[in-house]
Amino acid sequence: MKAYSSLGERETVIFDEVVTNVGSGYDVNNGIFFCPINGIYIFAATMASADNNKNLDAEIVHQGKIVARLHATVYGYDMGSQVAMVQCQQGEKVWIRHMESAGDSKIVPAGYSGFSGALLHSM
Amino acid sequence: MKAYSSLGERETVIFDEVVTNVGSGYDVNNGIFFCPINGIYIFAATMASADNNKNLDAEIVHQGKIVARLHATVYGYDMGSQVAMVQCQQGEKVWIRHMESAGDSKIVPAGYSGFSGALLHSM
Amino acid sequence: MKAYSSLGERETVIFDEVVTNVGSGYDVNNGIFFCPINGIYIFAATMASADNNKNLDAEIVHQGKIVARLHATVYGYDMGSQVAMVQCQQGEKVWIRHMESAGDSKIVPAGYSGFSGALLHSM
Repeated sequence: MKAYSSLGERETVIFDEVVTNVGSGYDVNNGIFFCPINGIYIFAATMASADNNKNLDAEIVHQGKIVARLHATVYGYDMGSQVAMVQCQQGEKVWIRHMESAGDSKIVPAGYSGFSGALLHSM
Repeated sequence: MKAYSSLGERETVIFDEVVTNVGSGYDVNNGIFFCPINGIYIFAATMASADNNKNLDAEIVHQGKIVARLHATVYGYDMGSQVAMVQCQQGEKVWIRHMESAGDSKIVPAGYSGFSGALLHSM
Repeated sequence: MKAYSSLGERETVIFDEVVTNVGSGYDVNNGIFFCPINGIYIFAATMASADNNKNLDAEIVHQGKIVARLHATVYGYDMGSQVAMVQCQQGEKVWIRHMESAGDSKIVPAGYSGFSGALLHSM
């Protein structure tokens, strides 16, 4: 993904280097995974903090509901990872949302963060 | 999940806020995933340490055998994650077991830890 | 996996304690996952640093192309994890490659690191 030098509160994190886009669910323009059919999906997210002595916080969001939270510590390039299984209806959205607290980083380094989704079972 | 203020040695970690429970394999009362049918399953676990300058250690256990170990460092909310594929027979158990060493934390913060399992392939 | 006391630059990391080897894709002799059929695969890797105040860096590689990078901080047993979905043709290779920078660790502790792969969908 690109490096972010300023991420706002509740801003969607856009991963623009998609290695694999199963079912074309991921829209690289807005960072949102649209579930192509009804089913159980697996989502994996990793966020790394930049080397500026600040934490980084983000969350996997499904239709506005928080699925899991990621935290990367103040140690540069520390990683927070989460993997979640989500029951998702066709057209519903899953995305990575930046959180922001006082003292949190708004910076994400390139290359060490990622977001993946794939269908496990149709329903 | 709920916050734990005291986890004992080899205590099963119970994740009581289950976002998705594929095949109803997960028992929220005792924290154990019972494989509903014979197959290859994927399990993902993330544990975050509390902000008290202590490490946190846990392991994914299948029928008493250690599958993978998780370690979260003394930095508050540091995360350890593991994902493992496990061949599991119907009715066999997979769970997250707390480890405990001298100086280890017994505390797990709410919201940043999780445990998921899903069938990849029946066998 | 075994403990590594000296990992070279771009050396393949060999995980010799394979808990599950779905489709026999993983070769424990050389650390390479050969995709047994054409399909979408899920790969998960976790690397933990040893307690020697050095970072550890590795990457998931598919046919020479970097899929995702892992970083473990100087805090001993800190973990970097990545999960990626990869479209892989029969016989193509996926492996974990150690990176090395000045000041990086060449040591990986036993028991806390792992690499898993499984087929999600044939294509």
